[in-house]
Amino acid sequence: MELLNRHVTIRKFKEKPVDQILLESILYSGTKASTTGNMQLYSIVVTKDEKQKEKLAPLHFNQSVAKRAPVLLTFVADFNRFSKWCRNNKAIPGYDNLLSFYTASIDALLVAQNVCIAAENLGLGICYLGTTTYNAKEIIDVLELPKLTFPVTTVALGYPDETPGLTDRIPLDGVVHWEKYTDYSENRIKELYAVKESLESSKAFVVENQKETLAQVYTDVRYKKADNEFFSAKMMDTLRLQGFIV
Amino acid sequence: MELLNRHVTIRKFKEKPVDQILLESILYSGTKASTTGNMQLYSIVVTKDEKQKEKLAPLHFNQSVAKRAPVLLTFVADFNRFSKWCRNNKAIPGYDNLLSFYTASIDALLVAQNVCIAAENLGLGICYLGTTTYNAKEIIDVLELPKLTFPVTTVALGYPDETPGLTDRIPLDGVVHWEKYTDYSENRIKELYAVKESLESSKAFVVENQKETLAQVYTDVRYKKADNEFFSAKMMDTLRLQGFIV
Repeated sequence: MELLNRHVTIRKFKEKPVDQILLESILYSGTKASTTGNMQLYSIVVTKDEKQKEKLAPLHFNQSVAKRAPVLLTFVADFNRFSKWCRNNKAIPGYDNLLSFYTASIDALLVAQNVCIAAENLGLGICYLGTTTYNAKEIIDVLELPKLTFPVTTVALGYPDETPGLTDRIPLDGVVHWEKYTDYSENRIKELYAVKESLESSKAFVVENQKETLAQVYTDVRYKKADNEFFSAKMMDTLRLQGFIV
Repeated sequence: MELLNRHVTIRKFKEKPVDQILLESILYSGTKASTTGNMQLYSIVVTKDEKQKEKLAPLHFNQSVAKRAPVLLTFVADFNRFSKWCRNNKAIPGYDNLLSFYTASIDALLVAQNVCIAAENLGLGICYLGTTTYNAKEIIDVLELPKLTFPVTTVALGYPDETPGLTDRIPLDGVVHWEKYTDYSENRIKELYAVKESLESSKAFVVENQKETLAQVYTDVRYKKADNEFFSAKMMDTLRLQGFIV
């Protein structure tokens, strides 16, 4: 629990490489996560090679964490392997659809989080790269992912070279609902986000981005409607290309 | 690591209830998981009330684990709360799209897996219910989930009343790829699934279902093409209803 509770994202790593046997034991713990019908609908692509990292870095918007991490792990929703097994065994797979894509994504993410916890337990630091879904199409090319696979998320892994403080969270009762979802009143929202808005780092963020409110930094700078729509259309195309949507 | 490595799914629980403070500490550890841009794009709906459980049980196909677990946790992708915060702060949210839905799903799943690990660490047992995505539409009604939310998965939680053995997994190098995805030859598939196919439990499964191969149990009985297509169309409709897809 303490391990979970003190989780922080690490964006700066030491140059120290991650030992191969250590890495494999971390990945092994990942595969112990729950998986739909024990189908293991995921693959993990490990990137250590500098040339591969150079190809992936721009797809992660050249974030320094993507460039400098000794290891990148791309977690892939994978119905390719399972479908091949079916075909080899006189069975006709029917996993070229949205539900199957989403099911495999769930599998991949449970493994990813297990891997992160195992890594942190061994003194490593991790950073999730949300950019994977933005540029899934290009990542598919670099990693040579076949049809019925889709890269869900990427984890940068290495030995921490910084000790960031814990990140703020809204109060627990702001995300937990008892029996039914209680929708949020204007006042409740104000209450829940009060601490976040009052942080010095948040205020600096607003000034830095020349905005009036913290929320505007999100909507106008970091996670913009136009970008979301662009990448949604691209994601839908990629799902078609990968055979998950007709 | 040992905790992760000895994970098993528990489908039979003692009648012993889960203490409220214990439950909250487990959920708290969940919220320490990484989250996209620290937006916390998830909610957790806790079901303990018998009447609510009765409404949810058929949506989980009346699996006894769903009916008998002292606690059900539904993990919800949630862009509603964040969008409300934006609107309260002179910011125009743009999260009514596929990418945002998928991003929030990722957030919800990382929390779910953290919650499971925290729970197991305290001696509880867990079972993921993949049925959530099948009947998301009806679960939305029962839990009164608003627009821009979607139930991603459900975890049944309680004290274990069984001690199942570890589940089989294909060899680690069957799911891990180095630098690039190496597609699977027919022989490789045979190798990877050999142990699974040779298990007594698998053989019994084939006989029980009157099939010729284990794969056919998956394609013809458990995860059928027709069902997958039916639930894919339903999921797409539900995403439209929830405002994530136009």
